[in-house]
Amino acid sequence: MKIILDAMGGDNAPFETVKGAALAVDELDVQLILVGDREKINHITEENNLSLKNIEIVHTDKILAMEDDPISVIKSNKDSSMGVCFRMFADDKDDEIAAMVSAGNTGALVAGSTLIIKRISDIKRPALAMVLPFERKTLLIDVGANSDIKAEYLKQFGFMGSIYMKKIFGIESPTVGLANIGEEKTKGTAEHVEAYKLLSETKTINFIGNIEGRDIPIRCSDVLVTDGFTGNIILKLTEGFGIFMFNKLKSMLSRDIFTKISAALLKDSLRGFKKSFDPSEYGGTPFLGVRRPVIKAHGSSDAKAIKNAIRQAKFCAETKLVEEIEMQSRINK
Amino acid sequence: MKIILDAMGGDNAPFETVKGAALAVDELDVQLILVGDREKINHITEENNLSLKNIEIVHTDKILAMEDDPISVIKSNKDSSMGVCFRMFADDKDDEIAAMVSAGNTGALVAGSTLIIKRISDIKRPALAMVLPFERKTLLIDVGANSDIKAEYLKQFGFMGSIYMKKIFGIESPTVGLANIGEEKTKGTAEHVEAYKLLSETKTINFIGNIEGRDIPIRCSDVLVTDGFTGNIILKLTEGFGIFMFNKLKSMLSRDIFTKISAALLKDSLRGFKKSFDPSEYGGTPFLGVRRPVIKAHGSSDAKAIKNAIRQAKFCAETKLVEEIEMQSRINK
Repeated sequence: MKIILDAMGGDNAPFETVKGAALAVDELDVQLILVGDREKINHITEENNLSLKNIEIVHTDKILAMEDDPISVIKSNKDSSMGVCFRMFADDKDDEIAAMVSAGNTGALVAGSTLIIKRISDIKRPALAMVLPFERKTLLIDVGANSDIKAEYLKQFGFMGSIYMKKIFGIESPTVGLANIGEEKTKGTAEHVEAYKLLSETKTINFIGNIEGRDIPIRCSDVLVTDGFTGNIILKLTEGFGIFMFNKLKSMLSRDIFTKISAALLKDSLRGFKKSFDPSEYGGTPFLGVRRPVIKAHGSSDAKAIKNAIRQAKFCAETKLVEEIEMQSRINK
Repeated sequence: MKIILDAMGGDNAPFETVKGAALAVDELDVQLILVGDREKINHITEENNLSLKNIEIVHTDKILAMEDDPISVIKSNKDSSMGVCFRMFADDKDDEIAAMVSAGNTGALVAGSTLIIKRISDIKRPALAMVLPFERKTLLIDVGANSDIKAEYLKQFGFMGSIYMKKIFGIESPTVGLANIGEEKTKGTAEHVEAYKLLSETKTINFIGNIEGRDIPIRCSDVLVTDGFTGNIILKLTEGFGIFMFNKLKSMLSRDIFTKISAALLKDSLRGFKKSFDPSEYGGTPFLGVRRPVIKAHGSSDAKAIKNAIRQAKFCAETKLVEEIEMQSRINK
């Protein structure tokens, strides 16, 4: 299976992306197309003694920066590493490339996926989905592709998220909740009230009702549906909580000699806690609703995170996620 | 100073409200009007040996329940304890009553405040504000009074929140941030982009720009402005996060004999952590933008939380919070 990787996207690119690519071909039985600066890529592989077996390099020396206008990926930045990935992926009529991965500019990834790869025809708005690091694995969808909210989009996020949790995490009939300010079906804006109705009526969605903020970390559904604004706030607030708590624990544990003894005794547990809030553990963020699997790796991805995002891309292709979403979007039209 | 208290509102009323009232008159140099079932109130004071000194009881045996329609406070539930509080407070032409406190139905408190006490004429939408329990005291406004969002409301939340933080917490020029999905001024919906502009242009607001979810627990502004939907999600997610973390720490600390030793060594710190996420520590939620001070105590308030909400009501009255908001709303029209 061949996966195309934007070698220059992300805060730690190309160093960590190239290392991640080498890890992936070593561990995952994939072939990779690395799009980026050939000279830099070769330099990294030589310096770090990495093999280029099963890795093909497609050269471009242009990079789309984090602060660039997202839409530039189809205009002035169409020759950037991300732009070339999109074009090669879209032009690949024989389905040789199974999926695409980039840790670059999220807005550009959304724009390029929608405008170049294109959305599945019955899906109104593709959405970014992300697993939250609480007791239960909850897929939050959308986490930032669309700031506006329509009941119909929320319904579609519901079945796209369900398919993802079933395919990737093996949950037979994933529960779906709607993030809202109260449990009653009359809560929220008019679009939330309508979305509650649509989600209840859709037979392929196991809808369990509204989920309040308080319940998200404790007893959430398998899929939590929301607009991209609220989803982005929930996702990043969770990330911030993790940092806040880790700092709090550190200061709690360094107060005196007794708490320092505790720190030593708790070392493993604390490492586990930090790890559970580390985005690199979770691979990437799938962009659901487009015609081919596109995975956004976290901007600050290290090699391991890149490898995990590639693994996820492989899963999405293997399990025919896109085809299933396409089928259900026709049924649930 | 006389404060009117809804004795029957809240999950633990009237027991905890009456005990809280007794604590308040004992510690705070206030007089109270307790509105509720006289027989029940007398029973509680007798059983618990509480003094009724400086407490006047106004009898009603009707209660507005948590699940009642908010608007019923001016209709079928106008004789409930909350309804009577509103009427007495609104009819008090000589300003004998300085503030009102209730732990009852939030929607009804918002409806009654807006429709009976009435909003300050230049304030478009009054808002509920709440202090978040992170390193830095951040006032989140709105946390649930309005689900819809307009740039003009967000601007007004900005100066109302600033006045509150100045008056109640003594912060000279409180920093104000706008909760958003990115730092750039072009981020979010059209209303966010416009709100960024309005907040920047308002001279009495010390606006520092957009605040992303990740920064809320770590390096937030003194006042964080948002719509009531997002605010409610942030507030309740924070509450849920506190519970999640406490459970996580408990299981971390009960794993084996070594971690149990740690638990003993960390007892005080853990108690402090739990306390920092306990809503009762923070008193109530002021409803800003109405013509008289109205404080919403948390639904699950115990006696101490009720006392703290009464203290807060007293502060709001003493510092002439309403008058200052009225003045600034005219200046910033």
